[in-house]
Amino acid sequence: MAGPIRPTISDVARAAGVSRTTVSHALNGIGKVDPRTRERVVQAAAELGYRPSLRAQRLRSGQSRTIGLVSSMPVAVAGGPSKLGFFMEVAAAAAETALLHGFALVLVPPLDSDPPLDSLDIDGAIVIEPDQDDPTTKRLQSRGVPIVSIGPQRGTDLPHVDLRAPQVGRLLLDHLREQGADRIALLMGSGHRSWYVDLAEVYAEFSREHGMPPLVVEADESGGEETGQAACEELLAQHPEVDAICASVDAFAIGAVRAAESLGLDIPTDLRVATRYDGVRARTSTPTLTAVDLHLAQAAASAVELLLANLKGTEVPQVVTNPPPRLVPRASTLTG
Amino acid sequence: MAGPIRPTISDVARAAGVSRTTVSHALNGIGKVDPRTRERVVQAAAELGYRPSLRAQRLRSGQSRTIGLVSSMPVAVAGGPSKLGFFMEVAAAAAETALLHGFALVLVPPLDSDPPLDSLDIDGAIVIEPDQDDPTTKRLQSRGVPIVSIGPQRGTDLPHVDLRAPQVGRLLLDHLREQGADRIALLMGSGHRSWYVDLAEVYAEFSREHGMPPLVVEADESGGEETGQAACEELLAQHPEVDAICASVDAFAIGAVRAAESLGLDIPTDLRVATRYDGVRARTSTPTLTAVDLHLAQAAASAVELLLANLKGTEVPQVVTNPPPRLVPRASTLTG
Repeated sequence: MAGPIRPTISDVARAAGVSRTTVSHALNGIGKVDPRTRERVVQAAAELGYRPSLRAQRLRSGQSRTIGLVSSMPVAVAGGPSKLGFFMEVAAAAAETALLHGFALVLVPPLDSDPPLDSLDIDGAIVIEPDQDDPTTKRLQSRGVPIVSIGPQRGTDLPHVDLRAPQVGRLLLDHLREQGADRIALLMGSGHRSWYVDLAEVYAEFSREHGMPPLVVEADESGGEETGQAACEELLAQHPEVDAICASVDAFAIGAVRAAESLGLDIPTDLRVATRYDGVRARTSTPTLTAVDLHLAQAAASAVELLLANLKGTEVPQVVTNPPPRLVPRASTLTG
Repeated sequence: MAGPIRPTISDVARAAGVSRTTVSHALNGIGKVDPRTRERVVQAAAELGYRPSLRAQRLRSGQSRTIGLVSSMPVAVAGGPSKLGFFMEVAAAAAETALLHGFALVLVPPLDSDPPLDSLDIDGAIVIEPDQDDPTTKRLQSRGVPIVSIGPQRGTDLPHVDLRAPQVGRLLLDHLREQGADRIALLMGSGHRSWYVDLAEVYAEFSREHGMPPLVVEADESGGEETGQAACEELLAQHPEVDAICASVDAFAIGAVRAAESLGLDIPTDLRVATRYDGVRARTSTPTLTAVDLHLAQAAASAVELLLANLKGTEVPQVVTNPPPRLVPRASTLTG
């Protein structure tokens, strides 16, 4: 399956009767080249179908014109049944925006093993919701790769697109209360992703405001649905008064639904379940899950543009705020 | 946001007291280098944190270690509400397989304009279900980029992963008949994608076998749901005896559901609707749509492996047959 033999710069030089340097200068508009010579070189190149090597051009320019999109979530949360979730929704929009700017987008999806980042020739990367000590972000930074994140990285001043986490948390908690819940528990992932920390803060504030005893359960996100279910079953056994679960990730919300089923609780009458990401899982689970439209496509486009502006060295604001999130109420909370 | 200053080969040469050529030879294991000199160079490189330029290495090897995934579908079918559909499902699995082989996957999603393919530095590409005269495939081939397709390209011997189109068509038609349909119409996209041609052939055969008068309607796929709905309304007005629609793409199936609604027909009692791709649309529409599990993740992994084998020049079979498709019956056809 070898392609057609590609003419080289030497072929053009031979055909035009000049040196390779002259060909290079003539075609790239550098140095002084006699206009008639330039004309002869251009014509020889066209006749031979010569195209300068992209890679050589890029070596000269120092740019690969490729950016990476990196998932920072474990496979159990971002892969498997969530494979078409958050990461791929961002990827679709980011790839489109990047291409329209003449950049290619390379995907680094959730992997069971460490992604082979050192073999990626990228000018910059977008990291999705990195944890405070995200090792992938660190590795890229140690290689000098400029990074932009979707959702801020705590404890850093990484340029980012702000998904308005506190507002998202408010939307979910206020909605659960409107649907009659007065003992809402928080089902959280471990780690210090900024979304988790912001949600915990909003929840603490909300609990104080409404005189509701706070109940926060942490589960290991790498366990996905199963750890979510186990944590939820334990919580409900110890606190049968809980009438709503606000789950930080959709895998945990599915776990909460399973826990309710195994305990014979009706959703939403006995237990309301809501989660953040309005993805395939929220839309296709039984019952369908109340979630929030984060305007991810727009966040992805903004992240690409922010990264490209940083690569160009343009003076830009280092935080782009996404449009206000919108609640999408569904069967899992609508008590009627 | 400039990264740390990167040490160059000259810095290493200076630190080790040797020429740049010697550094290059020592680190790349080429030429004859005195072992003590090599040791000194390696140590100087490590102390400075020098890493040879990936791009320069790739220029030498002639490989970018990047492959492209190219959508050949118009935005109306593969973008918009189908954005997380076929293309992204393939992308998620292909990116994973490529990375595990040390290759990056670049996405070329459906765009309203021509994708800027000439700026992509790729070793090869996977094209999804290309039409007979797909311009993208032609452009890549004219640049000498090796291609593998998912689904064969008609009239060519392009290496490909076979999705077993005739068997998929049979599953859908047999199922509609089992659910009581005896006047099944085919709602087809225009163009000569291999899936369409195979489906039309199976449908013709099926019609003959069952003495059913064939009814095939073609709609322009670039119109998406709307042209699907319009074509379906016209069909049902002219042929009120039609009791099932087999739609070639999910956007058209959604159009068929809308047509039934606007004509006051009940699905599935009056009209059964089935389509091929068991994606987000089929799973989330109202009613949910009967479709077929094509094992796309496996097809994607096979396509990557087939492409990489071709890049290596390994002797490999040029067609990989995917596992047998599986019908996923849902509300849109289940009359029982």
